[in-house]
Amino acid sequence: MVGLQRRLVEFAEARDWGPYHTPKNLAVALSVEAAELVEIFQWLTPEQSAVVMEDEGTAHRVRDEVADVLAYLLQFCAVVGVDPLAALSDKIDRNEHRFPRS
Amino acid sequence: MVGLQRRLVEFAEARDWGPYHTPKNLAVALSVEAAELVEIFQWLTPEQSAVVMEDEGTAHRVRDEVADVLAYLLQFCAVVGVDPLAALSDKIDRNEHRFPRS
Amino acid sequence: MVGLQRRLVEFAEARDWGPYHTPKNLAVALSVEAAELVEIFQWLTPEQSAVVMEDEGTAHRVRDEVADVLAYLLQFCAVVGVDPLAALSDKIDRNEHRFPRS
Amino acid sequence: MVGLQRRLVEFAEARDWGPYHTPKNLAVALSVEAAELVEIFQWLTPEQSAVVMEDEGTAHRVRDEVADVLAYLLQFCAVVGVDPLAALSDKIDRNEHRFPRS
Repeated sequence: MVGLQRRLVEFAEARDWGPYHTPKNLAVALSVEAAELVEIFQWLTPEQSAVVMEDEGTAHRVRDEVADVLAYLLQFCAVVGVDPLAALSDKIDRNEHRFPRS
Repeated sequence: MVGLQRRLVEFAEARDWGPYHTPKNLAVALSVEAAELVEIFQWLTPEQSAVVMEDEGTAHRVRDEVADVLAYLLQFCAVVGVDPLAALSDKIDRNEHRFPRS
Repeated sequence: MVGLQRRLVEFAEARDWGPYHTPKNLAVALSVEAAELVEIFQWLTPEQSAVVMEDEGTAHRVRDEVADVLAYLLQFCAVVGVDPLAALSDKIDRNEHRFPRS
Repeated sequence: MVGLQRRLVEFAEARDWGPYHTPKNLAVALSVEAAELVEIFQWLTPEQSAVVMEDEGTAHRVRDEVADVLAYLLQFCAVVGVDPLAALSDKIDRNEHRFPRS
């Protein structure tokens, strides 16, 4: 993941996108891509959503939107200096206390 | 990342959250968490957004929302069977053709 | 607004879209359209965003996304039985107490 | 609706919120409020979502989020000079051609 993050940062630098990549803009772009992922599912029943990857065209769209969400998440983290894996590991530790096993 | 993804899946299984974790619901939850990240920045100028991590309380909120976004992204990917790093690597390859260096 | 809401409801009924128009799906569709409105602005500076209507193509996109957001908001309200103008009027009354004039 | 829009604009002016109320920020705030509406429904089945107003606490949250979405939509429209009812009326006219009755 660190290698992909570096490729994304170099990609943006090589295209002079730095001034656009404020933390605010990257967070907003992440939310826009998350909405594009949601759009694939918006009219589906829970049952239809469970088999969405059986259609190759839709499966491609899903992978593409997952990539976009992760790309903006990693670029956001690079700009604000957050380690996303450490943040998630800490959060899971906290949640194991908050939500006891049923 | 694979280890964290496994912890998240086991965490949900141990709490019988499986029926709630349809691809549709996880995509929607991802977008809700992305909006909570955006909310931190919504009234900030670009300049204010660039120094957002200097305030420890805000920095904690940012790390927390990053963790939530990544958690739902990994759980979504587990349920639909998408490898997020492979999806992103493919996308960067394609983008290097679409957007030539300036 | 009531007349437009009635046209939207009749439009959906005439196309048998009722089963898709659950409160959940309409709320999700509203959030997807809001993200499409945001997308127009995502890389703009505050100054650029202030003159966005000077470009006729962008102005058309803005009006189109405003229409989509309002359409899903009115359809959501019809399905759950909420009067949006009454809800907003109540909220403004409450906010006048919460946020005193500066 | 015009009266409520005027109250919102005066409310913001009286609190010197003008500099924050760029078109970009208001569109982003609209999307954040739309996500808060979605959050109410995120883990509900379609059937549960259809009876969401039977619980008075949830019904209050729904009305509150509807008010917030409409408030930011009207403030956005005031700032960019769009008439939301005219935009929606035009859109319905276009859609009646795009989607013939079934």
